[in-house]
Amino acid sequence: MRLLPPKGMRDFLPKEKQRRRKVLDIILDEYKKSGFLEIETSMIENLENLTKSNSGENTKLIYKILKRGDKFRPTENSKEDDLADLGLRFDLTLPLSRYYANNKNELPTVFRALQTGYVFRAERPGKGRFRSFMQCDVDIIGEETYIAEVELISTIYRTLNRIGLKGQVIKLNDRRLLKALIMSSGFSEDDFISVAISLDKFDKIGVEGVVAELESKGFVKENIDKVIERLSDIEKQGLSAVESLDKESYDNLNCIISVLSSTYDDLKLEFDPSLVRGMGYYTGTIFELYHESSSGAIGGGGRYDNMIEHLSGVSAPACGFSIGYERLLGIVEEMNIVEVRDTNIALFYSADDDLSVVLRKADELRNTYDMVSIKLKKKKFGKQLSRLKGEGFDYFAEFAEELEIKES
Amino acid sequence: MRLLPPKGMRDFLPKEKQRRRKVLDIILDEYKKSGFLEIETSMIENLENLTKSNSGENTKLIYKILKRGDKFRPTENSKEDDLADLGLRFDLTLPLSRYYANNKNELPTVFRALQTGYVFRAERPGKGRFRSFMQCDVDIIGEETYIAEVELISTIYRTLNRIGLKGQVIKLNDRRLLKALIMSSGFSEDDFISVAISLDKFDKIGVEGVVAELESKGFVKENIDKVIERLSDIEKQGLSAVESLDKESYDNLNCIISVLSSTYDDLKLEFDPSLVRGMGYYTGTIFELYHESSSGAIGGGGRYDNMIEHLSGVSAPACGFSIGYERLLGIVEEMNIVEVRDTNIALFYSADDDLSVVLRKADELRNTYDMVSIKLKKKKFGKQLSRLKGEGFDYFAEFAEELEIKES
Repeated sequence: MRLLPPKGMRDFLPKEKQRRRKVLDIILDEYKKSGFLEIETSMIENLENLTKSNSGENTKLIYKILKRGDKFRPTENSKEDDLADLGLRFDLTLPLSRYYANNKNELPTVFRALQTGYVFRAERPGKGRFRSFMQCDVDIIGEETYIAEVELISTIYRTLNRIGLKGQVIKLNDRRLLKALIMSSGFSEDDFISVAISLDKFDKIGVEGVVAELESKGFVKENIDKVIERLSDIEKQGLSAVESLDKESYDNLNCIISVLSSTYDDLKLEFDPSLVRGMGYYTGTIFELYHESSSGAIGGGGRYDNMIEHLSGVSAPACGFSIGYERLLGIVEEMNIVEVRDTNIALFYSADDDLSVVLRKADELRNTYDMVSIKLKKKKFGKQLSRLKGEGFDYFAEFAEELEIKES
Repeated sequence: MRLLPPKGMRDFLPKEKQRRRKVLDIILDEYKKSGFLEIETSMIENLENLTKSNSGENTKLIYKILKRGDKFRPTENSKEDDLADLGLRFDLTLPLSRYYANNKNELPTVFRALQTGYVFRAERPGKGRFRSFMQCDVDIIGEETYIAEVELISTIYRTLNRIGLKGQVIKLNDRRLLKALIMSSGFSEDDFISVAISLDKFDKIGVEGVVAELESKGFVKENIDKVIERLSDIEKQGLSAVESLDKESYDNLNCIISVLSSTYDDLKLEFDPSLVRGMGYYTGTIFELYHESSSGAIGGGGRYDNMIEHLSGVSAPACGFSIGYERLLGIVEEMNIVEVRDTNIALFYSADDDLSVVLRKADELRNTYDMVSIKLKKKKFGKQLSRLKGEGFDYFAEFAEELEIKES
């Protein structure tokens, strides 16, 4: 038997799990405090829903589940989708959209949804990249104005602040701006996503890399130079430079930035004209959250006003923000910022003691301590005691009518 | 797009999810208080581990995951296991055993493990039967005496008691007793599990049904009559009747029953000679928990001293108890016994208000209330107010320098 979990998957030791649980509890608590209602969706989706979801690269990374019983009929020419009918979800946005379309009548008009859970992607695993990982999402469905963006960013900011990440930076852009910029540089509407995805890589491959990639995609050199020059101009001039490009996006970003900067002193909001994000379904504002402790984004999201309609025919504006829980956990561990300290006590008894009385005593202690563990006293009691501290027990007592509680 | 989750899978509305979360929180809290350390294992296992696990019927109900990339090479003769390399876990016991064998050196000598999470079974779905459901397990690895059984039953008893299930009944048996009984009635050792599984059905199909089933399996009539007669004798006489059959099991059951009955007044412990439980891996004590609110068992477990060795070569005695979380949820809902009452407030503002000041006010309120939702005042404010109560808001306020908090 293979003792390790499958490649890219993980088990967690008690200490790791304790930290994961604690951080998740804080996230859930702050999300709820902010007015979001917790929901849960199935981890398994009908395969067709996943493949038709306009979710970019993620649709190539689906774990597909074999058809069962008589429906499993392989031939030499079988494609994956002939033999599979279900798939593991790759994010929480698609299931939420399906959920909303299905349960709309039982949900508030403006629905603030919170969802945490595992998602699965058959990616090449690497440092800090896993094939099964947790996402922590907040979404607002039914609010078409910038108030949704403001509430979401405020919620994430306060959550991460409570966890200990002071001095967060939010980078913002708008897909409509990006599209106007690209199309007014000579590209066609169909090329928009492809060009945008290359533009997203300045940080990774530099200007030359981006130019080379766009050339290799077969785009006209003149257009490439034009879009890069204009982008660089906008980066220098800042938000004011895009007022003429798309007035609505400009106003919208302005509102979001001005409200949030005057609410939270230590939250920095930056317009980033080259921010793209990978998904095809974004329609308006997009944003990412950064912190000095990590080079990559810790969270991100945006507006996807057409997705629910695309999937179900039910029209509803929507905007979401997701914390990259695994990356956050890495930071929490490195910075050692979340205290997980329980008060644990070990109650030692000997074989002569009446186990039933020992159990009742332990139950009494459970009203006071976070954890009470009963332990049979061994011959080498001293050795047993010396291990207590390492096992997380700050206190111990030997069973008696009147307990004398000592520090380990 | 199909708006419902796949057959046998579920989504949960906010009200349902709130109840699920609350009940799970109580279970986690009581399990932890009792000295169990929370762990987490991968939801996806290597397929081979699942199929070779001696887990009875469950190995026929595995959701299998298609191989990816070049490894996916179907032919007309492909078997399921040629095309799949991973599977979704069907319980938490197998992953725990693998986990323990893998991490043994970093875990306490007597390891009290707690694990909650989803498991997946491609069963025929029906009333109260789902294809994805939650299990809540406690296991003790490294304790070979009856103390493990006593601690597990005590933990489950207190947990369900706190949830509100007064008057629980634990039915106990021992696989060794069952085996001695069946073999001394003339059956061979190889027939043991098959005969036992039929004997398990007295409640469902009656004596005649059991006899018919055993006959259809081709067993000798004389042996069938003998085992049924002896079982009925033992049922009449109680535990004392099995002392001669297997002294060790008899002593063991006696100890468990006597310690626990003298500890907890309202916990009833009953020896049930026809209790079997389906898994092949049980080696000693087996038990199930019943309550008048449900005809089926709410939880169950037993000793599986050979499983870890069978899977990994690492020898370790083990015993576990699992709460059937979905069944428990059904009871909680029906009996309406778990209070989920948060103090929520809606903060209304108008378009003229400074959103930044409104946000800061909301953040202040979040120190006092469980949930604070900001809401833009609509023209029909009265109608908006009238819906508040139904949306779970007991309080509301209109934004002002000094808030006046009112009941909805």
